[in-house]
Amino acid sequence: MKTTIPTVPTPDDAAVWYEGRLYLADQRILPERTEFIAYDVAADVADAIRAMVVRGAPAIGVAAAYGVVLAGRSAYAAAAEGWKAAIESDLERLAASRPTAVNLFWAIRRMRSLIDTLDASDPTDRLLQEALAIHDEDRAANRRLGDLGAELIVGPTNVITHCNAGAAATGGYGTALGVVRSAYAAGKIRRVYADETRPWMQGSRLTAWELMHDGIPVTLQADGAAASLMATGGVGWVIVGSDRIAANGDVANKIGTYGLAVMAKYHGIKFMVAAPTSTIDMEIASGAEIPIEERDPEELLSCGGRRLAPAGCDARNPVFDVTPAALVDAIVTERGVVLNPTTEKMRALMV
Amino acid sequence: MKTTIPTVPTPDDAAVWYEGRLYLADQRILPERTEFIAYDVAADVADAIRAMVVRGAPAIGVAAAYGVVLAGRSAYAAAAEGWKAAIESDLERLAASRPTAVNLFWAIRRMRSLIDTLDASDPTDRLLQEALAIHDEDRAANRRLGDLGAELIVGPTNVITHCNAGAAATGGYGTALGVVRSAYAAGKIRRVYADETRPWMQGSRLTAWELMHDGIPVTLQADGAAASLMATGGVGWVIVGSDRIAANGDVANKIGTYGLAVMAKYHGIKFMVAAPTSTIDMEIASGAEIPIEERDPEELLSCGGRRLAPAGCDARNPVFDVTPAALVDAIVTERGVVLNPTTEKMRALMV
Repeated sequence: MKTTIPTVPTPDDAAVWYEGRLYLADQRILPERTEFIAYDVAADVADAIRAMVVRGAPAIGVAAAYGVVLAGRSAYAAAAEGWKAAIESDLERLAASRPTAVNLFWAIRRMRSLIDTLDASDPTDRLLQEALAIHDEDRAANRRLGDLGAELIVGPTNVITHCNAGAAATGGYGTALGVVRSAYAAGKIRRVYADETRPWMQGSRLTAWELMHDGIPVTLQADGAAASLMATGGVGWVIVGSDRIAANGDVANKIGTYGLAVMAKYHGIKFMVAAPTSTIDMEIASGAEIPIEERDPEELLSCGGRRLAPAGCDARNPVFDVTPAALVDAIVTERGVVLNPTTEKMRALMV
Repeated sequence: MKTTIPTVPTPDDAAVWYEGRLYLADQRILPERTEFIAYDVAADVADAIRAMVVRGAPAIGVAAAYGVVLAGRSAYAAAAEGWKAAIESDLERLAASRPTAVNLFWAIRRMRSLIDTLDASDPTDRLLQEALAIHDEDRAANRRLGDLGAELIVGPTNVITHCNAGAAATGGYGTALGVVRSAYAAGKIRRVYADETRPWMQGSRLTAWELMHDGIPVTLQADGAAASLMATGGVGWVIVGSDRIAANGDVANKIGTYGLAVMAKYHGIKFMVAAPTSTIDMEIASGAEIPIEERDPEELLSCGGRRLAPAGCDARNPVFDVTPAALVDAIVTERGVVLNPTTEKMRALMV
């Protein structure tokens, strides 16, 4: 939990609450520029989530929880003891910001459970305590699951990661990069190969920045170069985060993850998914039920502000895919590790 | 064979000989701008190949053949009947431009065989006849292999292609896109999914442009999105070109091809390599002997002129990979089709 806002964001500062405002590190411009944007109203937080100022499933959950604090404060200012009715539209707006990461809905549901217990007086302080708790618990979960994931790795070896499942994607420390941090500290990882991760380039911009910030050796590669690296040997694990895990262990994560899992299996490389239990959605039986967000094709048709494809070119831009549980060697959570996940094992974890 | 240079290049105009000069369509800026660059000396053609003004294995071979014409003319102007000695440095310079595409060495060797038969008089016309023949034969080979490849397709279906193995990558018509053109004309292809193909984005820039130019339905996707498309069904074939095929049927092609082949096998999708026999290198036993070009990491660290990765970030940028013959369902050439390639079958083709 941050109590002061730093001048510029570090990887751990995806979301910072400071003196009654929410500050989000603008992840669309990192690491070229390191800037916070301040938020005072929930609708703007919803827009920030949609526009990917903040991204990464756990970080979206944390930002949404703070968004509910802002919503509660606004609702009480506007409607006094009628705040519980007044807050609803903001809760819905936050929930509608992005469809795939379940942490968003989990955080809003947890805040709503608290709201149900509150009386008609000003809820701001109680809501803030809960949001800060969600934030703290996420960071603690990542440290715990980072250590548990590191225990699985027989090193020293090299690993491949995809997208950014780091401090910037979470309340802090990171999920996949939490495992990397713990394993690197234990001498088990030599080098991290980071897929650049089109179309948003979270690997180039965020994962490379985070790991260089921590002094962990990182080499960037095109998404298409992962298979040739696997063929050379020397890669022990693929380690990724997740946006939603179904009850049977199917894993939604950044587009390209499924292909990596297929290639890992072909090469006999282990495949690890690191995520807090807030990412697990026991209400859906399999990955087929996970809504996959399709974003604006324009994200593909241009890059770095330069137009690439011909005018009028058709494009598909699903930003997540589903990796079937059969390709997953380990799901690593703060509550424990599930090897070769099945519905039965996932239920046992979540009891 | 072009006899007049058009105002702006079409996909078929990768290389055009016109009034004593070689014109190359500048493929670094297509389709944003359509411009020719004129060449009078072989050293500049070598630089153009290295800088990817012209790219695609067969097109590189054609450009190099014309480069030898320029080299012969310069050598005769400088050394008269001593031209055979004087031409050597330019031949070496052309051969050193890029390492992976064997068509480059094939074209230079063929021009050299002609040179060995020539006397000391001005060789320009004879060299030009040979370069034009190489160009014409490549276009004819592509039309033939395009038809042969199309025969393999049971349609109507959708296909995935990677990079650009089209008219712009060849003497004309294209290899993988030659198959696509023939199969689309035969009603066997509904839609082409084109991987954007980082880092050079040949899919976004060239394949999309070519197919839209011909009115063939094309949808662009991130390289990482191919697996999720395969999982939805409806994709019958992955069709790619090649930069060099070893004697055992191992295939070097644009980085990302190998991963696509692994994913195709996993999904029960057929994998076709379309290439003229000038791409086949019977002098190397397997793909392990194919030199894989590593290009400037800067190609990854920026995109569209915008810096993405942190300063000093390490990157690996191999621009080709090797797909083992075991993952290849068909190698399609102008001499015929090799199913499930082996050294024996490749030898039979090349006799």
